[in-house]
Amino acid sequence: MSGYCKLHIIIFEIERNLGITAIARIINLILHGGNMKSYIEMSVAQLKEEREVVERRISEYKSMNLSLDMTRGKPSSEQLSISNCLFDNLETKTNFKASDGFDCRNYGVPLGIPEVRNLFAEILNTSSSKIFVGNSSSLNMMFDTLMRSLVFGQHDSDKPWIQINNRKWLCPVPGYDRHFRITEDLGFEMINISMNSDGPDIDQIEKLVSEDESILGIWCIPCYSNPDGIVYSNEVCERLASMKTKAKDFRIFWDNAYVVHHLYGDKDKQGSIPDILSLCEKYGNASRVFEFASTSKVTFAGAGLACMAANEENFEFSKKIMDAQTICSNKVNQLAHAVMLPDLDAVEVQMQKHAEILRPKFELSLDILSRELDETNVVNWHKPLGGYFISVFVYPNTADRVVKMCKDIGVAFTPAGATYPYGKDPSDSNIRIAPSFPVVDDIEKAVTVFALCAKLAAIDKILEERA
Amino acid sequence: MSGYCKLHIIIFEIERNLGITAIARIINLILHGGNMKSYIEMSVAQLKEEREVVERRISEYKSMNLSLDMTRGKPSSEQLSISNCLFDNLETKTNFKASDGFDCRNYGVPLGIPEVRNLFAEILNTSSSKIFVGNSSSLNMMFDTLMRSLVFGQHDSDKPWIQINNRKWLCPVPGYDRHFRITEDLGFEMINISMNSDGPDIDQIEKLVSEDESILGIWCIPCYSNPDGIVYSNEVCERLASMKTKAKDFRIFWDNAYVVHHLYGDKDKQGSIPDILSLCEKYGNASRVFEFASTSKVTFAGAGLACMAANEENFEFSKKIMDAQTICSNKVNQLAHAVMLPDLDAVEVQMQKHAEILRPKFELSLDILSRELDETNVVNWHKPLGGYFISVFVYPNTADRVVKMCKDIGVAFTPAGATYPYGKDPSDSNIRIAPSFPVVDDIEKAVTVFALCAKLAAIDKILEERA
Repeated sequence: MSGYCKLHIIIFEIERNLGITAIARIINLILHGGNMKSYIEMSVAQLKEEREVVERRISEYKSMNLSLDMTRGKPSSEQLSISNCLFDNLETKTNFKASDGFDCRNYGVPLGIPEVRNLFAEILNTSSSKIFVGNSSSLNMMFDTLMRSLVFGQHDSDKPWIQINNRKWLCPVPGYDRHFRITEDLGFEMINISMNSDGPDIDQIEKLVSEDESILGIWCIPCYSNPDGIVYSNEVCERLASMKTKAKDFRIFWDNAYVVHHLYGDKDKQGSIPDILSLCEKYGNASRVFEFASTSKVTFAGAGLACMAANEENFEFSKKIMDAQTICSNKVNQLAHAVMLPDLDAVEVQMQKHAEILRPKFELSLDILSRELDETNVVNWHKPLGGYFISVFVYPNTADRVVKMCKDIGVAFTPAGATYPYGKDPSDSNIRIAPSFPVVDDIEKAVTVFALCAKLAAIDKILEERA
Repeated sequence: MSGYCKLHIIIFEIERNLGITAIARIINLILHGGNMKSYIEMSVAQLKEEREVVERRISEYKSMNLSLDMTRGKPSSEQLSISNCLFDNLETKTNFKASDGFDCRNYGVPLGIPEVRNLFAEILNTSSSKIFVGNSSSLNMMFDTLMRSLVFGQHDSDKPWIQINNRKWLCPVPGYDRHFRITEDLGFEMINISMNSDGPDIDQIEKLVSEDESILGIWCIPCYSNPDGIVYSNEVCERLASMKTKAKDFRIFWDNAYVVHHLYGDKDKQGSIPDILSLCEKYGNASRVFEFASTSKVTFAGAGLACMAANEENFEFSKKIMDAQTICSNKVNQLAHAVMLPDLDAVEVQMQKHAEILRPKFELSLDILSRELDETNVVNWHKPLGGYFISVFVYPNTADRVVKMCKDIGVAFTPAGATYPYGKDPSDSNIRIAPSFPVVDDIEKAVTVFALCAKLAAIDKILEERA
């Protein structure tokens, strides 16, 4: 073993036992500064030596008999507890009456109570007349919107979408597996669109939609995209709103899932995207977009409030069918939310509490990734400033192996490929890390295991390629 | 004016001013005992005399400038207050954990928490493995089940139902307007089935379904049918479960909306229907039925819990698609319900409280109808022992006029025809009275106005027929 390798192990031991990441990083820097070679630059002998070090470190983690889960993009118990007061004294505070006096315990008010429509309008920077309040799942509202499109088409369709046999949908990748599941199950052929640092590849999108009438829509998570955490640029938003589409009833499903989910309070650092409804209207494509959001990661996950926002034509067309579907959504839950979160300011205070819990977990994960992987120069990721995930691109054709290796050590990651349509990542490279749910100590172990496996798999693949 | 008419007015004045219905009825009985002629037996002169009396009484109500609403089949504020404690101390009592330890504030458990699945299983007399818990609207679950059938068919279908252009659905009439709205909007031709005192006309149903492959299902409200309050007999249930259907994927939508909604505690008087899932299985038609229920009229209307029950094949087939639709329903609401209503006994205690509020309203309505209309012998109704409505058949071809007359006097009833597919009652005879929401004093006035208008319209129609 080289002196370099021995020192590396010492550094690791300092970090693991003392947890003093900063000190370890300084030592690390002093020891090999900018001098460490990237994996690509290393000779076969150097790679083999590095492999030995990595393998030895992995074996230590194996001996810990870990059982850690980094798959779940859900809030931690600590975060959920912020909202434990949701129903406290609801009767005393409201007598169960909405601001317009309507009894929230009874049937009626299918669009949602005024104060909640106003709240979502503030959050989405639009007008309350455009807001439908649903139950707790925005995914459910997206699914239903596509089901309605299949059976009835949209107001500007020539026919129900189910009659378009080769219907297609654009999927920025990596993306949200639950989106892709919906379009797959509903019979859309899914087309991968690359993600750039400013959003989905808009050149590629413009070209495709201008040529193919059977491309009926696109999934977008514009603010802190799942999983990359990318914020769409104004230019991308403008071009999505203004582009010419061959399908006259083309729809953007604008899933604004993380619109207020900033990790940093500093406004400059925050994701900020334009109101897509106005943008589409500005360019004469007012019916192009359905927007969605929920409070699942503001209050309770799967038990908060969801909403859909739409222009007048889409609103009226949807409402007619939704009026047949149900009498109303749960207004008692709406009222409880309105009391706890009367306006956007209250939401922002609430989100700062979430950020205080999430930030250390994200920073720790990013620190470990950076420390372990920066110098290899074969693994990369976007540093998110909000949202729920870190999306890592490991060395091509190793993602599946990395996840399996981690699993063998007792650390579960989302299956490789899950972030792509049909579960197929063409480069077998992307892995989604969800740091929100585990405790900090688990994250430290889990992300280190991940980084070590990513290293080992990269080395083996490079060696294989050189053989 | 005859002495008979003068006395009738005196009786009415006693009733109106003193409210002593019993005394007035006794006097009424003494005065013309069984001797009053039915409207059909009356001569033209007698009818005209009766008309004068009725019109005079109506004019008194006109002068009251009433503004009453008998359209709304929803619980009163007093009933809703029974459940005001729903969320009280939920955290202290449960720490937001379900019986299996799952955190109800977080994503997961798409089928519903165990204790609520058990509760609905008890209510529906089936096993908890057959229960899906939804959000608050069982109507939503029915709509979604039909949408899935359109797009995917059912597990035993040859093709998606949307490809069956002449698809048909059986509708026992009178029935629930929201059912009919769904099948109309989803493109089913609706076929009226007469209701008898033991349920829908099973001879007619058996004949139709055995001959026509495009008849894909039937709406049923087996216990206290909306609006008649009829309880299906065992024979009708058995024959629905066992009949031969030409469509191999025929489905019964068994909307058990009022399964625990008895007005009388006496078990003998209560509606009691067999478990339709077992019955269908017994006859080799296990996949024939989807059953639905909710707590909208147990706890909060539109903010309670809804469920669907299905056999294994229907369950698995539905679940696959519902898993794409949403991550889970609102489990915090489920947990709150489970605390307040841990078992069927608790539900029965809760329903007795509702019955104590509802019973006087139903009895008053029925008393007035009986007192005013029995002897005319041209208006009839089934006396419900549960549910939410009284369904009155006025003299043929007068229902629309009766509703309009009532409206002119300031009393709103559900539009005539609303209880039939396409809003068309072929006999223009049925009117639905919803006594749950108004206060007793309003019911007294409103139902009397209704009875008087029914009388006047009948007299006019009979006179017209004789002219």
